[in-house]
Amino acid sequence: MFNIFNAKSVAIIGASRDPKKLGHVVLENMLHGYKGATYPINPEASFILGKKCYQSILSTDDKIDLAVVMTPAKTVPGIIGECARKGVKTAIILSVGFGEIGNHKSEGLIMKAKKKMRILGPNCIGVYDSYSKIDTIFTTPQRQGRPGHGGISFISQSGAFGAILMDLLASEGIGLAKFISIGNRIDIDESEALEYLRNDNETKTIALYIEGVKNGRNFFNVLKKTAKQKPVIVMKAGRTGAGIEAVSSHTGTLAGHSKIFSAVFKQSHAIEATKIEDLGDFSKIFASQPFPKGKRVQIITNGGGLGILCIDELEKKQLKIAKLAEKTIKHIEKNVPAYVSVSNPMDLSGDATTERFELAIETCLKDKNTDALVIAILLQISAVQSNIVDVIINAKKHKKPIVVCSIGGDFTTKHKKLLEQHDIPTYPTPQRAIKSLQALMKYAEYKGVIK
Amino acid sequence: MFNIFNAKSVAIIGASRDPKKLGHVVLENMLHGYKGATYPINPEASFILGKKCYQSILSTDDKIDLAVVMTPAKTVPGIIGECARKGVKTAIILSVGFGEIGNHKSEGLIMKAKKKMRILGPNCIGVYDSYSKIDTIFTTPQRQGRPGHGGISFISQSGAFGAILMDLLASEGIGLAKFISIGNRIDIDESEALEYLRNDNETKTIALYIEGVKNGRNFFNVLKKTAKQKPVIVMKAGRTGAGIEAVSSHTGTLAGHSKIFSAVFKQSHAIEATKIEDLGDFSKIFASQPFPKGKRVQIITNGGGLGILCIDELEKKQLKIAKLAEKTIKHIEKNVPAYVSVSNPMDLSGDATTERFELAIETCLKDKNTDALVIAILLQISAVQSNIVDVIINAKKHKKPIVVCSIGGDFTTKHKKLLEQHDIPTYPTPQRAIKSLQALMKYAEYKGVIK
Repeated sequence: MFNIFNAKSVAIIGASRDPKKLGHVVLENMLHGYKGATYPINPEASFILGKKCYQSILSTDDKIDLAVVMTPAKTVPGIIGECARKGVKTAIILSVGFGEIGNHKSEGLIMKAKKKMRILGPNCIGVYDSYSKIDTIFTTPQRQGRPGHGGISFISQSGAFGAILMDLLASEGIGLAKFISIGNRIDIDESEALEYLRNDNETKTIALYIEGVKNGRNFFNVLKKTAKQKPVIVMKAGRTGAGIEAVSSHTGTLAGHSKIFSAVFKQSHAIEATKIEDLGDFSKIFASQPFPKGKRVQIITNGGGLGILCIDELEKKQLKIAKLAEKTIKHIEKNVPAYVSVSNPMDLSGDATTERFELAIETCLKDKNTDALVIAILLQISAVQSNIVDVIINAKKHKKPIVVCSIGGDFTTKHKKLLEQHDIPTYPTPQRAIKSLQALMKYAEYKGVIK
Repeated sequence: MFNIFNAKSVAIIGASRDPKKLGHVVLENMLHGYKGATYPINPEASFILGKKCYQSILSTDDKIDLAVVMTPAKTVPGIIGECARKGVKTAIILSVGFGEIGNHKSEGLIMKAKKKMRILGPNCIGVYDSYSKIDTIFTTPQRQGRPGHGGISFISQSGAFGAILMDLLASEGIGLAKFISIGNRIDIDESEALEYLRNDNETKTIALYIEGVKNGRNFFNVLKKTAKQKPVIVMKAGRTGAGIEAVSSHTGTLAGHSKIFSAVFKQSHAIEATKIEDLGDFSKIFASQPFPKGKRVQIITNGGGLGILCIDELEKKQLKIAKLAEKTIKHIEKNVPAYVSVSNPMDLSGDATTERFELAIETCLKDKNTDALVIAILLQISAVQSNIVDVIINAKKHKKPIVVCSIGGDFTTKHKKLLEQHDIPTYPTPQRAIKSLQALMKYAEYKGVIK
């Protein structure tokens, strides 16, 4: 198994004084939170960002665990040779211009030069670890946020999706454990990254974006073994003929037939993401919600139209529409105006206050006929106050999955972030909320929690 | 035809001194931008928000064009009688507790009392007009944004979706002409609202959310006639058995079979929205982009994975993958690094600068083999500078549709807003970008622009 996240010392090979160069950004990011030793390597500089700079990795007497390499492609095999001589355990190669443009020769030279050392990349954006703060992502924090601690980890063959997912999670207030960009994966591949995360204590849920796999049989075995232990959400790009062609010039991968992949995911009990937004949507419900004991879902809303779309979606996704007990209905009806529809969907009406929501949420979650709750809430209306956030967070005590469907501008976004920070997943549409709930229920069935 | 948007004077019946009451919020919103005369009506107050208050609408000697009514259901028929006597042209009834809870009797009394007056509602949130600033929406600007001028108009049977769409458009920097919430539509219905907007000069594109229609034959005729003149995007909720049931308790509507609706939309050449996000997604491409002359789409990206998903989606949606002319390819290849894939998708690579994007965008749009452009851009990377926004806006001069696919946190969101403000539609995912482009192309075919 590779050793990256517990590296005690890191060399930045290609560190730069020019703030526009990625060799500067990566060094700056590493100096920001990482507690280990950082060694900038650049033969033409004495100091960068106040750190002493070295001619080559061989010029330092200290032990180096991890090397991050971002020099031009033609220099990389030589540098990897030096790293191997130095006893570096792993090198992350951010440089481009290898297999993805047909330059397999240089990749061969790297593999020869590396000896026992392990390689991540090339043509990748490396890793981010919210715990050790090892951060080789060459985007600045001004451009792309870094999520705080959390249970989601993400492996991606596309660096872009890594940057996007990290940025979105950070801006939405959701945590991330580790991100691993595998790029051309000439050595460490998706299967090994999966194995690593299976054994990683911080990782509760794994999301995976692939364009193809290196060793199908091995991937299948690792996926099956991993999905037994933790939920694995996986997206396969390059599904159409033209998409498969496009994959080959992206990471030099043979994309393979999408139906075979879907079958493999199904047999492994991995959860397939068919849209890019599913990766984040599914990850956050798995990382935050308990498994439901059944498929009966109650909808509570203050916007009738939202309730209807939720019900449409429950039926489409073959979840069950919860039927509240007589006593639940009576208790709520006694305490709300006559125009409130105490049913499923429960339309609390546009003038619903936080108190009316609290009554509905608490009573429905106590009802044995309800396994999960969707709160489709319009925060645009003044009747419901900001403390609705506390009511929803407090409802976690019932240990039934809760998802919130809400969308809007600044006010709504601010309140959604508060919910996410307290482990309540929020979704912009009924479809995405209920699709995520369906994914959770499917895995709960596999785990035998839903019988 | 009803008269709402050119009302010179408006009575707010049920105006309130309590800032929590909707009678206060509506008055405050009207006083904010509306240039006509506003009359608060409340028998128990002398002044509200500095405006003289009247006992009843009959206590003022001035002419009143429009009445906004938000008193309890049981008082509404009487008040409508007073409005009719006063010679009010239209009343918007925001009050609830009518047909949606089986109280059809009160609706009958209103219809009897109204005489020749026209009624919008009840159980609706009324209207918003970005031009006249008539704004009866009972949400505060702190909770829900108001869009500026624009060519999109929206008719909705659900008030919630009106509030959400306005809030989203405002926060994204997109304009809106008019919003009309029809609620229980005891008088003015979806067909009449459509006719109104067909003849409205400010309205370039109409979006419509319905749960059912009042008069199917008439709706079909009006829809067909309207769609011939302007693009009409329509969403029908209550598609499943349970959804149809839920509709009935929302606006007291018989929802009808969704397949029949789909057929009606198709025959009328209305564009069907199958997901709630389609309403905004489609509206903004129609309101901002020229019709393409063909279906050949070029993808330009700085994130390989994004490019692949775009190509997958083009193929899935049966659009054509543009094949650049030899001379276009040569011109770009001459000016970019060897690892740039000058193809479709054109992956400019993670280190693509604004200049590289400009070269690609300009050259591709000049190419006769390209009918439309998708720019799938990762703004998280520092190589591309903020002036990419100017390059994209400047590309409008080629008069070919351009859509941008981009998603992220604050930095990305800020730049997307700049694009939207300059009539470049942006989408968070490849799927949504290309689905919108497909809708535009379908309508361009109907209009004979694509042959």
